[in-house]
Amino acid sequence: MNTDALDALRARYGEQLSTAAPVLEAHGRDESHPTIHPPHAVLFAHSEADVVDALRLAVTHGFPVTPFAVGSSLEGQVIPVHGGLSLDVSGMNRVLSIEPGGFQATVQPGVTYPELNRQTRSHGLFFPVDPGAEASLGGMASTNASGTAAVRYGTTRDNVLELRVALMDGTVIRAGSRARKTSAGYDLKHLFIGAEGTLGVITELTVRLWPLPAHVTVVRGTFATVQAAAACAVAIMSAALQPERLELIDEHGIRAVNAYEGTAYPEVPTLWIELAAASGGALDDAVAACTDLCRDAGALHVDTARSAAERAALWAARHHAYPAMKALHPTHARLSTDVCVPLHRLPDVLAASRERCDAAGLDATFLGHVGDGNFHVLFHAAPDDAATWATVNDVYDHMISLALDAGGTCSGEHGVGLHKRTHLAREHGDSLHVMRGVKALLDPRGLLNPGKILP
Amino acid sequence: MNTDALDALRARYGEQLSTAAPVLEAHGRDESHPTIHPPHAVLFAHSEADVVDALRLAVTHGFPVTPFAVGSSLEGQVIPVHGGLSLDVSGMNRVLSIEPGGFQATVQPGVTYPELNRQTRSHGLFFPVDPGAEASLGGMASTNASGTAAVRYGTTRDNVLELRVALMDGTVIRAGSRARKTSAGYDLKHLFIGAEGTLGVITELTVRLWPLPAHVTVVRGTFATVQAAAACAVAIMSAALQPERLELIDEHGIRAVNAYEGTAYPEVPTLWIELAAASGGALDDAVAACTDLCRDAGALHVDTARSAAERAALWAARHHAYPAMKALHPTHARLSTDVCVPLHRLPDVLAASRERCDAAGLDATFLGHVGDGNFHVLFHAAPDDAATWATVNDVYDHMISLALDAGGTCSGEHGVGLHKRTHLAREHGDSLHVMRGVKALLDPRGLLNPGKILP
Repeated sequence: MNTDALDALRARYGEQLSTAAPVLEAHGRDESHPTIHPPHAVLFAHSEADVVDALRLAVTHGFPVTPFAVGSSLEGQVIPVHGGLSLDVSGMNRVLSIEPGGFQATVQPGVTYPELNRQTRSHGLFFPVDPGAEASLGGMASTNASGTAAVRYGTTRDNVLELRVALMDGTVIRAGSRARKTSAGYDLKHLFIGAEGTLGVITELTVRLWPLPAHVTVVRGTFATVQAAAACAVAIMSAALQPERLELIDEHGIRAVNAYEGTAYPEVPTLWIELAAASGGALDDAVAACTDLCRDAGALHVDTARSAAERAALWAARHHAYPAMKALHPTHARLSTDVCVPLHRLPDVLAASRERCDAAGLDATFLGHVGDGNFHVLFHAAPDDAATWATVNDVYDHMISLALDAGGTCSGEHGVGLHKRTHLAREHGDSLHVMRGVKALLDPRGLLNPGKILP
Repeated sequence: MNTDALDALRARYGEQLSTAAPVLEAHGRDESHPTIHPPHAVLFAHSEADVVDALRLAVTHGFPVTPFAVGSSLEGQVIPVHGGLSLDVSGMNRVLSIEPGGFQATVQPGVTYPELNRQTRSHGLFFPVDPGAEASLGGMASTNASGTAAVRYGTTRDNVLELRVALMDGTVIRAGSRARKTSAGYDLKHLFIGAEGTLGVITELTVRLWPLPAHVTVVRGTFATVQAAAACAVAIMSAALQPERLELIDEHGIRAVNAYEGTAYPEVPTLWIELAAASGGALDDAVAACTDLCRDAGALHVDTARSAAERAALWAARHHAYPAMKALHPTHARLSTDVCVPLHRLPDVLAASRERCDAAGLDATFLGHVGDGNFHVLFHAAPDDAATWATVNDVYDHMISLALDAGGTCSGEHGVGLHKRTHLAREHGDSLHVMRGVKALLDPRGLLNPGKILP
């Protein structure tokens, strides 16, 4: 970024613009990467007009713009690898309206999903997508984040009704509709969801809210192997129990959680199955059916956590699995994979992946949103342990091949960002020319979050 | 289409190509329009290669191509207004695979949804989207069709996992994933869904299947006004009863159905509410709660249709509402509107629309998928009754203004086609330049279904 550009930004934004070293450094990384690529400047946007003007200045002066909110992306999405401006929308954090009877809320992109849920709870409603960090809704839409509740409520994509998006041509468009369904013209909304800020900058979202479930419980089943646990997950989905959540955590993950949380869960592969119903009687029926299915699938032990406190502790533990693993190996670097396969292929892909890890002698933790066929393997090793990292990358490549061969995807929920561009080429090589055409249409000079998604 | 083009088509396709007058005429209309625009030729495609070669010849010879399957579109989508080739994929009608454990089936675009359901039923699974005609899955994806069950299962858009699409550049791409969720690159799948065959030709679909509900019943509530019925629908949705279907039929619609089906339903505004549960006890709870809500909302009468035969008769009657109205006024032309609004705005938009119809002295039937905020008004008049049609068009324009002002859409499920292009411009004027860019990217010469969607 040249002096003219910086001067123009300073003239327009005054103290909203920062070039202080700690600010630049904080905007030069996300949750994925040890390397820091600081931007040349950070703009703390307060309004849509701030965003529109930043894009206009970027075009005038030819500098890159990388949108940023809380920085919790997992594939390097918010890292400004080509420098330029980090466009921080975390200050655009107002809930603009909540329409309980319309099951919707309109928010600025910097609103976090926990904050939205604090405000909707008194209406008996919630926004169900929970990726597990204090993620912003703009960021969640940009990566199509999901998490534990997607098995019942879908991903962020499925829960965005309407977007306002600032484009590089200086316009702001509205995509989608606040109506629950629409067949009016080309669906531009879904083009911006998951585009990781490479096609436009989301300035407002209307999202779908759902009724808080009335009666909830969690069934826990322990199993001898991850494969047996995955087979049980398939059986539960096939029985149409419609779990709210259906999570697998392997013995390594439980061990890390126990160490981190001071809990004493049995350190074996475990399914956590949250069930909900409109009446207590219906819930009892569901718990009985689920318990039978776990036993039929060879569960070592099945029990039930009915109290709200006990359930909250369980999900807190699940959401802390990643920091728990970090805490267990504080000096290690980490890599989290994120494949997703059609459900009937989950047990064999999971088993083959586990075998490969074991054969390679890797200390790998398996956990996942297995009701969706989505699982993560968390690898870790000393940053300078080149031999182990080479093995990790081999195993990772093999896992992606297994997933793609099974009709699955290289990214269930983390997105592509910096790190999965070559995997995207393996998965969607036949349509990359169309993706490039879309990028050229909306960002002809390649200034929006350059270096991401497209290989 | 010139002689060279016809010769080239004949050389490639032989008897798969037809220029017989009755065939051309049958491909020159849909359910919407009295005017017939026959194509110059009809190609009965049997394979993806047939489709790819047709697009290649279209580019070489510069003739338009309009995809066609069963011809049940409602906004003129399949009418080849610029002549050229009607690309009939109804013969691509094979169910290629059913994966019960993956909750998915892969089909060719000419497979109808009733045929798919005949084949999946033995697995305890079904494809839930039911627009009510013997629609093809390719056509349903192209218009993002929905119907009575969208309130519970979403629209066609929500139930397509993966597409194969033939493009004008000669390539065939795969968009989406057979995994239930993916965040791998730009979402091209949703660009082709609802594009009405203007961006590419769908040659294969992998769709989502759902477990058949175990225990089902239909509650019927009758009301003094459509507004009271709509308010009850909002209450039912807010109570999170998650109905399988939630339909409003007004007194005119019931009268037409009674005349057509020989039934004797009370001729007043009526809600038909289908409820399902995993156990009989849970269903009893839901029926009791729903009955209470109807009574609280001022229902004149509430009863329940429990037997499968009685339920089938009810839904057959609902699906025949359109032909029933046709039969009541056989010489009249018809127009069906299709607005959708955020649920909390449904009662007032519906009431204002009804008042406007009554004030204008129009004989208009209201019916709709009111759990989604989607309703139709069916107008009819003698084709040459210019005064009545002018009034109809005024009222229709006003209804669309009401819907757009309420944050809704001019097309909940019928699409844009020929007839709603100006309404699309009112709804999405700010993004038409992007839609045009997408069209130019994928069909630079404007040969794919020209004259549709874009004003």
